[in-house]
Order: sequence, then structure tokens, then C-alpha cells
Amino acid sequence: MNIKIVFYVLGGLLRLLGIIMVVPLGVAYYYGEDLTPFLVSIAITVITGLILLSYKTDEEWMRKEGFAIVGLGWLIAAVFGAIPFVLDGISPLNALFESMSAFTTTGSTILTDIESHPKGILFWRGMMQWLGGMGIIVLFIAILPKLGVAGRQLFRAEAPGPTEDKLKPRIRETAKILWMVYFVISFAQVVTLLLAGLSLYDAVNHTFTTMACGGFSNYGLSIGAFNSPLVEYIITFFTFVAGANFALHYRAIYVDRDFLLKDDEFRFYTALVLSASGLLTLLLWRDLNTGFFDSFRLAIFHVVTIMTSTGFAIADFNLWSESSKMVILLVMFIGGCAGSTGGGIKVVRILILLRHSRTELFKALHPRAIKSVKFNNKAVPDEIISSIISFVVIYLLIFISSALILSVLGMDIITSITASIATLGNIGPGLGVVGPMGSFDPIPPLGKLILIANMWIGRLEIYTVIVLFTPEFWNK
Amino acid sequence: MNIKIVFYVLGGLLRLLGIIMVVPLGVAYYYGEDLTPFLVSIAITVITGLILLSYKTDEEWMRKEGFAIVGLGWLIAAVFGAIPFVLDGISPLNALFESMSAFTTTGSTILTDIESHPKGILFWRGMMQWLGGMGIIVLFIAILPKLGVAGRQLFRAEAPGPTEDKLKPRIRETAKILWMVYFVISFAQVVTLLLAGLSLYDAVNHTFTTMACGGFSNYGLSIGAFNSPLVEYIITFFTFVAGANFALHYRAIYVDRDFLLKDDEFRFYTALVLSASGLLTLLLWRDLNTGFFDSFRLAIFHVVTIMTSTGFAIADFNLWSESSKMVILLVMFIGGCAGSTGGGIKVVRILILLRHSRTELFKALHPRAIKSVKFNNKAVPDEIISSIISFVVIYLLIFISSALILSVLGMDIITSITASIATLGNIGPGLGVVGPMGSFDPIPPLGKLILIANMWIGRLEIYTVIVLFTPEFWNK
Ligand SMILES: [K+]
Ligand SMILES: [K+]
Repeated sequence: MNIKIVFYVLGGLLRLLGIIMVVPLGVAYYYGEDLTPFLVSIAITVITGLILLSYKTDEEWMRKEGFAIVGLGWLIAAVFGAIPFVLDGISPLNALFESMSAFTTTGSTILTDIESHPKGILFWRGMMQWLGGMGIIVLFIAILPKLGVAGRQLFRAEAPGPTEDKLKPRIRETAKILWMVYFVISFAQVVTLLLAGLSLYDAVNHTFTTMACGGFSNYGLSIGAFNSPLVEYIITFFTFVAGANFALHYRAIYVDRDFLLKDDEFRFYTALVLSASGLLTLLLWRDLNTGFFDSFRLAIFHVVTIMTSTGFAIADFNLWSESSKMVILLVMFIGGCAGSTGGGIKVVRILILLRHSRTELFKALHPRAIKSVKFNNKAVPDEIISSIISFVVIYLLIFISSALILSVLGMDIITSITASIATLGNIGPGLGVVGPMGSFDPIPPLGKLILIANMWIGRLEIYTVIVLFTPEFWNK
Repeated sequence: MNIKIVFYVLGGLLRLLGIIMVVPLGVAYYYGEDLTPFLVSIAITVITGLILLSYKTDEEWMRKEGFAIVGLGWLIAAVFGAIPFVLDGISPLNALFESMSAFTTTGSTILTDIESHPKGILFWRGMMQWLGGMGIIVLFIAILPKLGVAGRQLFRAEAPGPTEDKLKPRIRETAKILWMVYFVISFAQVVTLLLAGLSLYDAVNHTFTTMACGGFSNYGLSIGAFNSPLVEYIITFFTFVAGANFALHYRAIYVDRDFLLKDDEFRFYTALVLSASGLLTLLLWRDLNTGFFDSFRLAIFHVVTIMTSTGFAIADFNLWSESSKMVILLVMFIGGCAGSTGGGIKVVRILILLRHSRTELFKALHPRAIKSVKFNNKAVPDEIISSIISFVVIYLLIFISSALILSVLGMDIITSITASIATLGNIGPGLGVVGPMGSFDPIPPLGKLILIANMWIGRLEIYTVIVLFTPEFWNK
């Protein structure tokens, strides 16, 4: 482990973060708000960045350094991104919670009266999600496959990668393409929302948090504040897009329009969204006093937003019937597609596990048959299935431990379970105390720390963080 | 598929079942109760058995017939075992629920006032569990491994089996040994309970349902009715024994006393029981107004009884604090050891999945390392891990579907979730409406049918039942 390289890269990251903070500073200036929080944050962040940059080295980073940069990168971004919140009067723990929730695109909030905070601060909160989403796409499509992370083939890189010791040029190239796609789609959403009547501030802020599958809103009522079916359908559409693979979007936009529809994961993703929305429509229609089309609107909005781990709300689903809440609870575990900004277990993993089980069932009937699991017409190698399983097992283990600890700290079972999955899956809201119109503020400090860890671990697909805690990792 | 052989074997099973019903008939006679229910049931069961036995054939049964015999065997045993309940005035659906719950050793009950039923009927209810437990041990240790069921090596047969087309002699031999062990331990429990002051009727009835990890009691208060810590500790001990592998018990009793302690699964099982009991002791001590030792007694009793899927109760844990209920909910998913009468996912599967994940994590750190998962110092073949995964995936899928349907039928989330896992895992009681002092009676008919299917599918380790529903199975 060459710690100097890690410091150097993190230094560059902090300097960049400080420079980016000029944007919310501008927003605060435009609205005539106090500039101190951002000025001080920029100073602290840039100076720390410059200090770290003094560890200049010409060496290239390799696997281990890559892990450390990713894992610690998200952590220090959250720490420094929290400074404006602290200066806005939020307690340090709550500020770190909110900032980690933003950079991991989780969208769980400890704010209880969102509108009472300055526009600059809320803009920064949304922008951090957009930056986090950007980071995630590059991480999954460009960086992790090169680091040889278990299950890498899942995140189909655009082209075969270079050898392990020359990571940077290839990553930079792939990142550029992805960011372009991310920009183009974001731009389309801003324009659409403007046409639907939103202010520029609202349009940009909600585009930030849609594209990141983030789910922060500058309104306590979330998307419900606009009271506009048109806006809701626009957000539903772009959330659905953000929950799909950006590498596929690239191909669909620039290469072949049919590419998305030919992809097994995208088809399964669409099928899941449609069937869960269909069921929820019927349940809401039966259990609530709403018409069929309103039920459909409510259903598809919340299925898309919860399943992709975005977490926007237009109604307090915490108050729905038990069966409707069950649908919400179940889709929480699914997540977005690989290479999207969505969190959760991910559609492709669920699809492959299901196909694997079907194959095993076939083998139980035909003990001598040879049959392999297919994905996009190619056989899935056993190592992939192996790594998916260990991912899901560790995911469930962390989920269970977290839910258990929260309940020990005094939270009820539904809150403990949904707060854990909502943070680990980077979803945002849960049920019970942490429902869409609630807040994570009532959770005790130790619980908040665990949920912060959940967000961090969940966002970086577990391994990337866990390896940092093994002594072997830091050896040599 | 040679359906004649299946009919013939099932005929023999029914004739035997009819003959066994003479035992509860004797109990009813002893207590001067109405004999009609048993006399009629014996007549119907034996006559049906004889009709099926007319399909006499000299052919041996093979794989497919083996599956059909096992799957349909449990089903028709439940159907005919329900007749005495129907004649006792219980509705046919409820009677089938209770009888399936008995033969699958689940212990979920639709009775609301247990003591109002005749002693003969309650004895039959307990005895069916004991018979079901017997069937399960033989199924897992002697039959399934020979049928080449996925994951067969998990259930380590006593000795290498014969070739596939000569199944019967070997199965018969293994079955005899196992039944002897089952008898010996059952006898020890009856004697111990008698010494602790129970009546012969209570001692035999509760031994039946302990040894089967069944959990039916002839008292509405379950083991709480005896109000005796001594009885509780005896039941805890024998439940713990029944939740361990009977093939190991055989070796421990007749070959080498250390055999159990050397077994990875038994050690992990013990560790799980102790750690969950320890945690629950502390939680009960903190949250309830009970002393430390009473908390320990409550904790170890319920952890053992729920984890092994027995489901006895000495307190209404439905009324405990949220964290205590969470511990109960979590251990529900574990189950007993392979080759025990316990249900659930099973300790060995969880152990191997955890070890697999640890190995994968190691590989993420050392991409070129070769390392395999070990169990009892032997490498676990990849097919085993593969089959465990598909088992767990299908298990969770059935669990989720069942919970979803129950909630759609109007049950609350906690009841829907725990009723599903309590039946699929053959545990017995859940939380909410179906708590240990509650009943499954309030669940709507469709829900009961699904829970009956859960018990059947869960008890036969899923595959054995699922294959019966594939058209391929019945071809040729
Ligand atoms: K989110
Ligand atoms: K049971």
C-alpha cells in the first residue's frame, strides 16, 4: 500500500470539491443569503486538499490504492461536504449523516423543517447527490471492473480494459463518455421540468436528485409540493432512466436505439416495475378512496422511486394499507440496474439468482443434464454467481445486524428494519418513524452512526469498504 | 413414472396410518371419550389403503417414484390424519391445517380453546408430530441422499449408498438405526418428565412434540401451563437435542462420545443458541421487570424452541419489547441442523453460506489466491454451494410471495411476515395475530390454504414438492 498516492489523489479530490462549492456559494449570493458557511467551507476544504497534494508522487496507483481511494474518497467527501451544514447550525453528527446521505445518493434526511434552511444550503444538499451519482457511475462502470472486484463482469465495461498497472488513461476516457451521457440526460430533465412550470432553482435541484437516484427535495412534502401530475410523471420517467444502466444509455443514444430493449437486465427491470406498479395500483384502488388513474399515478411513482432507491414521495405511504406498505417494503430490496445511480441489491443480481435457481431445479429433475445460467445469451461464469451470493449474504448480514441494533436502541421493528434497508440500499425513506414525511432525527446517536456506515458500505457495494477494515489490506 | 408403484407404497402407508390410529383410540377409550371419530377414521384410512394396495407390483421404485411417494405421502397422511378432527367438529379446512401442521411438525394451530377438545384427539395431534418427525429423519438421512437430491451430501448418510436401482434395502437398514435412536431419546425424555412430576399423558404428549421439534401442547398456555422451571429446562434440553443431527446422535451414543463436539454444524448451532440466548437474556433483563436468572430461563427456552423450529412457549413473547421480538424474528429463519427434526433454512446452510462469503472476501483481497470452503475439514464441492443458494433463493421467494398474499388478504405486515416464515420454516407460532398465545384461525381461507402449502413445501425442503408440479415430472 502506497499511502502517499492515496493522500495525493484524495488531496486532488478535496481541492476539486472546494472549487465546486463555489456553485452553491453563487446560489447563496443570488438569494442574498449568508455567504460565511460556504466561504469557510471552501477555505478549509481547499487548504486541506493542498496539504494532501504536497505528497506529490509520480507513481501510478494500483489495486490496493484504488480501493483505499474509493473507500476513503467517499468518506472524506462526506466529512468536508458536511461543513456548510455545521455552519448552518446543524449538529456535527446530523450534518455528517445528511452529507453522507447526499454523497451516497441515499436521501435519508435528519432535517425536520426543510424549508427553514437557506436555498444555498439546500442547493448544496441536492448538488452533492448529483456529484455522488456521477461518482457512482464512474466507479461501477470504469473503476471497479479494472480493480478486479468480484462480480466485475456484471458491470460490463465499454471495452476490454488495459493491464492492471496502467489504470488511469482508460478510466479517464470511459468517465468522460459517461459524464457526457449524465449531462445530456440531466439537461433534458431540467428543460422538461422548466416546461412543466417549475422555477429554474426547483428544476435544477430536483434534476440533481433524480439523476442520482438521490431523492432529496427542497420541500418537506417532496414532489408532492408541486401538486402536479405532469411533474410527477416527468420525475417518474427520469427516475426510471436514472435507475437503468448508463453504459446502455450511451449505446442507446449514440449507437443503436434497440440496445436497451435487448438487454436482459433492462427487460427484467421494466417487468418488475410494471408488475409491482400494477399490483400496487389495484391495492391502492381497493384500499384507498382514490380513482383508478390516481391509484396508478401514485403506484407507478412510488414503485419507481422506491425500487430504484430514489425515495421521492408524493404521498405518505406510511399511512397506506398494510398490503400497500408490503409492496413498498419488498421493492426496497431490489434496487436499480448495474451501472445506474440506483442502490439496493441490484436487478441483475436478483435476475441471475432467480435464473440460477431455475437451473438448479431443472438439474434436480435431470441429474445428468448440463445446463448453465444465461445472461444476454452468454453463459454466466460460476465465479460471478459465487460473488453475487457472497454479496447478498453479506448484504443481508449487515442489514440484519443493523436492524437488530436499532431495535435494541429502542426503535420499533418496522422502523428498525426499514431504516436499515433504506440506508444500506441507499433508498432514503423507510416506514414507521422514518417514513417519507418523517425524519431520521429521532434515531439515537449510535443508531445514526450505524446508518451512516450502512450508507457508505451499501453505496460502495460492501467489498470496497470492508477490505479497508482488514489488517491484511494495510500490510506491506 | 410408474404410478402403480406409487399407489402401492402409499396404500401401505395408509394401512399403517390406520393401524397406528388404534393408539389414540385406546387413549380415548381410557378416558371414556367418544370412540366414533377414531373408529370411522381407522375404517376409512385402512380401506383406502387396501384399495391402493391392490395395485400390487413387483417393480422397484426409482428416483421419480421416490419423489412422488415422499411428496404425496405427506399430503395424504395429512388428509387422512385430519379425519378425526373433522369428526370432532372442526371444519375440514381447519382440520387439514391442523393435521398438516402436525405431520410436518410445524405446530401452528387453528384451535382457539385447546383444552375443550378430547384427550384422545389431542393425543393424536401430538402423536402425528412424533410420526412426522420420524418420517423427516428417515427422509433426510436415508431417502433423499439416495434420490440424488441437490445438496444431498449435506445430510451425510451413514455409509455410501447402493446403486440407484436398489434403494429399498439400504434405506430400511438406515431407517431402523435412526428410529432406534429416536425411540431411545424419546424414552429418556418421557422418564425425565415423569420424574419432574408430569402425568404420563402429559409426559408422552410433550415428548412426542419435543422430539419432532413440533411444538403442539395439549395446553393453551403451552409449557407455561406447568409453571415449573425444571420442566422448562428439561424441555429446553431435549428440544436442543432434537434440533441436532440424529445421525450424529447415533454415533455419539454408540460410537464416540466426542463426535458431536467435533462437528462443525453442531458447534455453530451451539454457538448460535448461546449467543442469541445471551443477547435475549440481557434484553429481557433490561426491558422486562424480571430478574437475571428468570430472564435467562425465558431467553434460552424461547431461543432454543424458536430457532429449532419447535415453537413451544412459556410466555407470550408477542408482548415483549421490540428488540426482544426482533431476536425471536431473526432466529426464526435459522432452523435446526441437517438430519434433525427441526425445520427452517438449517444451520449447515447458513454456516456454509457464511464461510463462502468469507472466502469470497479473501479472494477480493487476493485475486490470484485459490481457497475453498471447508466443512468438517473437507472442501465443500461447488455443486453443494450452488444448490444451497438456489434453495435459499426459492425459500425466500416463497416466503415473500406468501407474506405478500397474506397482507393483500388484510393481515398486518408483522403477522403476514411471521405467519409465512412460521409455516414455511415449520416453526409454529409467529408474532402479531399468530403469536404464541394466538391462533391461525382468524386467517382467511385462501391464506390458510397458502400456509398449508408452506408447511408441506417447507418440510420437504422445497424441491421434493416443487418437482411434482412440473409437467416434465409426470412425462413418460
Ligand atoms: K436514494
Ligand atoms: K414446530
